Amino acid sequence: MTILRLSMLRSSRALNPLALGLRCVRCGTVFALGDYHEGCPVCHDRGVPASLAIEYAELPKSLDRLADWQIYPDHPTLGEGDTPLVRMDGLAREIGVQDLFVKNEAANPTGSHKDRMSRFVVQRALDAGATTVAAASSGNAGASLAAYAAHVGLACVVVTTPDMNPNWRRAIEVHGATLMAAETPERRWQAMVGRVKTGQWYPATNFILPAVGSNPFGVDGLRSIALEIFRDLGGRCTDIVVPTARADLLWAIARGYCDLRRAGFLVDPPRVHAVEPFARLSKALAGEDYRGTFPGRTTLVSIGGSTVTYQAIDAIASCGGKAVVTDDIEVREDQDRLARCGLYLELSSAAALTGARKLIAEGAMSADAVVVLVGTSSGLSEFHTYTEAIATVT
Amino acid sequence: MTILRLSMLRSSRALNPLALGLRCVRCGTVFALGDYHEGCPVCHDRGVPASLAIEYAELPKSLDRLADWQIYPDHPTLGEGDTPLVRMDGLAREIGVQDLFVKNEAANPTGSHKDRMSRFVVQRALDAGATTVAAASSGNAGASLAAYAAHVGLACVVVTTPDMNPNWRRAIEVHGATLMAAETPERRWQAMVGRVKTGQWYPATNFILPAVGSNPFGVDGLRSIALEIFRDLGGRCTDIVVPTARADLLWAIARGYCDLRRAGFLVDPPRVHAVEPFARLSKALAGEDYRGTFPGRTTLVSIGGSTVTYQAIDAIASCGGKAVVTDDIEVREDQDRLARCGLYLELSSAAALTGARKLIAEGAMSADAVVVLVGTSSGLSEFHTYTEAIATVT
Ligand SMILES: [Zn+2]
Ligand SMILES: [Zn+2]
Repeated sequence: MTILRLSMLRSSRALNPLALGLRCVRCGTVFALGDYHEGCPVCHDRGVPASLAIEYAELPKSLDRLADWQIYPDHPTLGEGDTPLVRMDGLAREIGVQDLFVKNEAANPTGSHKDRMSRFVVQRALDAGATTVAAASSGNAGASLAAYAAHVGLACVVVTTPDMNPNWRRAIEVHGATLMAAETPERRWQAMVGRVKTGQWYPATNFILPAVGSNPFGVDGLRSIALEIFRDLGGRCTDIVVPTARADLLWAIARGYCDLRRAGFLVDPPRVHAVEPFARLSKALAGEDYRGTFPGRTTLVSIGGSTVTYQAIDAIASCGGKAVVTDDIEVREDQDRLARCGLYLELSSAAALTGARKLIAEGAMSADAVVVLVGTSSGLSEFHTYTEAIATVT
Repeated sequence: MTILRLSMLRSSRALNPLALGLRCVRCGTVFALGDYHEGCPVCHDRGVPASLAIEYAELPKSLDRLADWQIYPDHPTLGEGDTPLVRMDGLAREIGVQDLFVKNEAANPTGSHKDRMSRFVVQRALDAGATTVAAASSGNAGASLAAYAAHVGLACVVVTTPDMNPNWRRAIEVHGATLMAAETPERRWQAMVGRVKTGQWYPATNFILPAVGSNPFGVDGLRSIALEIFRDLGGRCTDIVVPTARADLLWAIARGYCDLRRAGFLVDPPRVHAVEPFARLSKALAGEDYRGTFPGRTTLVSIGGSTVTYQAIDAIASCGGKAVVTDDIEVREDQDRLARCGLYLELSSAAALTGARKLIAEGAMSADAVVVLVGTSSGLSEFHTYTEAIATVT
């Protein structure tokens, strides 16, 4: 592991002076700011892998500059963040809640929330003296990392599956990144291990099994979503619904709200709910070992995979949310439903709407709920072909 | 033509009380606020078609609420506008200017600047009692209109070419709009004429030949780009480079700056330059009749077509810009160049960078220029397929 020495920084972007280190989300041990690519060293050695997260000695007193809440107040930027919170009155009535909003992360520069992570990952990679950043990704994380790596002059490798959607392939390759394919997520991770250990690749994502969350500097950047929702809705928001696989986004939104509570801005954070395409986190919350493998099939590529992380459990516990399982066919209908209300999001994003319907059906969300669905990624990244010609105008 | 009667409004969105009517960009005649789908009736009857534009009795005294500068201060929204101005220091050095920014319109909800138009077009359609909006479009205008029509509950028809890119086709159809195909732009327009005349379709785009600009309520919405650039850069910006076909965007940016000058916010607006893939506007500026047909071939679909509009000439005259012609192969290289700096924009957007290089080479832009390229649309909308598999990781 590399401890960060400020004197060695290659760039002029300073770390947030309020950051005191990295804290394990499971055992609470605090480590010096630096890179621990397998998560908490203590928990890793004990066989219970868990993520580290940036720990702040104190939090800012004001929301005027949200950048001051983050690990890099100044950072490389392509204009990410500050995405619209889109009011959907028709959908609110349809599903039976007081207010419904979509936090539209498709408005980020590469079309997904991953840009909030990539801006910090590439800065941290520069600080660490890396020359190549790497991600295991089936799409949006890879395209995002490729864009930010290009922006700061780092090389980028994306390890993906052989059947990668050509729209994402194009987006990654046009930024000058290198694509490599492996059949399974596990094999992708194996390909990364050796190169990370030798320092050849600086990792943006998990690569171990049992899995941990993505790079903590990146995950810190996702907290801004919670800060923006709070800035826009104040304490009105009661429920946030998050499409979830290894729970970087879920955890970061829950943590953002915990930070706001700690700083005295609110008393009761909203519940932060996880939506998954088959039972993984749901099983872990019901008592199964989170380190296990949870096989399942889904067309929701961006939230697929058979692993759970400890941070997912921590997120649900900290904000009193639930985990709900959706059916791919219903999610597809809800993708159409969202598009018929004006927002074309990728299939995995639409799971948030399906999940909200389930939470209402289960009585976990009430008729006076003020709900935010996190729209994680743009529909434009989906690849469709047609055999029938467009009808000729008469 | 329908004169707007406020008492008949179906919605509660009021027109800007500062708006006094529609003024012809060519002859200056002012008409009552309403729909004149063939542009200025006077110029149309004289055989010299020209656009009408919203005319304001006076302009706001402040930039605090940019919405007050627009025809509908309150309007249906999917979170469009307020797009990032992305600083590109490497590119600035490379092309030899002081500062270079990309106004990234890809961050709009459907991935292009057209969303700034669609929000007002659908509102105006509702006010006019229309049930169906229609556009002649090969891509981004159609997808945008489809999204906003869905959002407000209007039907939408997009008349396109048979070879429409499947990514755009998907984006239009998923919003519930109807696609129809015709072989040429002229045929698309013919298909619209009858339906517009009978009131069956409310048009968002031009449909006559010689052509005029798009719906004036929509074009008014594009002025916001100038207001945002001015808010972000103040008087520093010297040159704005705009990919151009029938010049809605070019004209609206020039007009936005003229409005800022008229309101006393600045003395010298930046030059607003047009980039086109073959000589059309360039020929009209050199003396050819703007009503002619200017045939040419290009892969830059979004700024293709063989027509020029009078508003293009007005825009160049009002802000002292130039029209430059780019080569498709150079534009493709500049699309890669932009992506290697972090922004993946559609091919037509990259023409702004190629155009800026030409302006420098011609001496029309100096080494101390502060340049904004308008990045009109997302690269994710481009359709690419691959025959070679992704290399397997070793
Ligand atoms: Zn630990
Ligand atoms: Zn006229």
